[in-house]
Amino acid sequence: MAEPVRCEVKGVFVVMSNAATVPAVILADGAGRQLPIFVGLWEAVSINSAQNGEVLPRPQAHDLLLCALERYGIAVKGLRIDSLEDNVYYAQLDLSRDGKDESLDCRPSDGIAVALRAHAPISVTEEVLAAAETGDTVADMVDLSTFLCS
Amino acid sequence: MAEPVRCEVKGVFVVMSNAATVPAVILADGAGRQLPIFVGLWEAVSINSAQNGEVLPRPQAHDLLLCALERYGIAVKGLRIDSLEDNVYYAQLDLSRDGKDESLDCRPSDGIAVALRAHAPISVTEEVLAAAETGDTVADMVDLSTFLCS
Repeated sequence: MAEPVRCEVKGVFVVMSNAATVPAVILADGAGRQLPIFVGLWEAVSINSAQNGEVLPRPQAHDLLLCALERYGIAVKGLRIDSLEDNVYYAQLDLSRDGKDESLDCRPSDGIAVALRAHAPISVTEEVLAAAETGDTVADMVDLSTFLCS
Repeated sequence: MAEPVRCEVKGVFVVMSNAATVPAVILADGAGRQLPIFVGLWEAVSINSAQNGEVLPRPQAHDLLLCALERYGIAVKGLRIDSLEDNVYYAQLDLSRDGKDESLDCRPSDGIAVALRAHAPISVTEEVLAAAETGDTVADMVDLSTFLCS
């Protein structure tokens, strides 16, 4: 099986339509492919904070998770988005402690929020990139920070 | 210093006023005292899910945190709400692994969401109970489940 493709978080956006206003994280590989993943608003805000290096006065849930891992010497090795079923993305949060590796099933949104905070790599399998509609970025979307401040 | 007072989660409510609609968790000790703690909506939903024993199709952030702890044999010993400053409650999530105890600074909302999932005790120090307005339950509030379904 091919190695998962390293991706960066291009940004957190809000997709505007007549039907709904939905936050999305856009991942981008190095070859021009973009993967939009729809997430909850709270998760979007958390990812956006991490992406912008914001430190809030009190720890949020993803901060608490990372704090617990760090306190017990558990490293975040990375996040792998490895499955897409019925329009739902699945991910594995890869952890390691004293050579004991563990992978935790998680939503990509939580995984991205944790991986960004831990400065750990985010990757997507070729199968998922191929199955997803990665060609076009959704047209009517605005940056989350802009959306929240407008 | 006195032992913290064991409290139960009486419920998750939404306080309705002309100014705002704010979720609150109500803690209750065994002596008739009630402690309302205002929380974010997302955190309120997470606490409500745990309180009702709901298992969602995908793990939420607090589920992921507990999953990580369990995978590495880290026990949640309890949550202590131990400080109130400028109307902000502070809490400690007490963890233990192989006799190594750690306390993590957290928001009560995250701590309650995790403690309920771990079936771990929630306690509040006498100082906080004394400092808080624990006498009356806020008048105009509805159960969160009712609020979300109405």
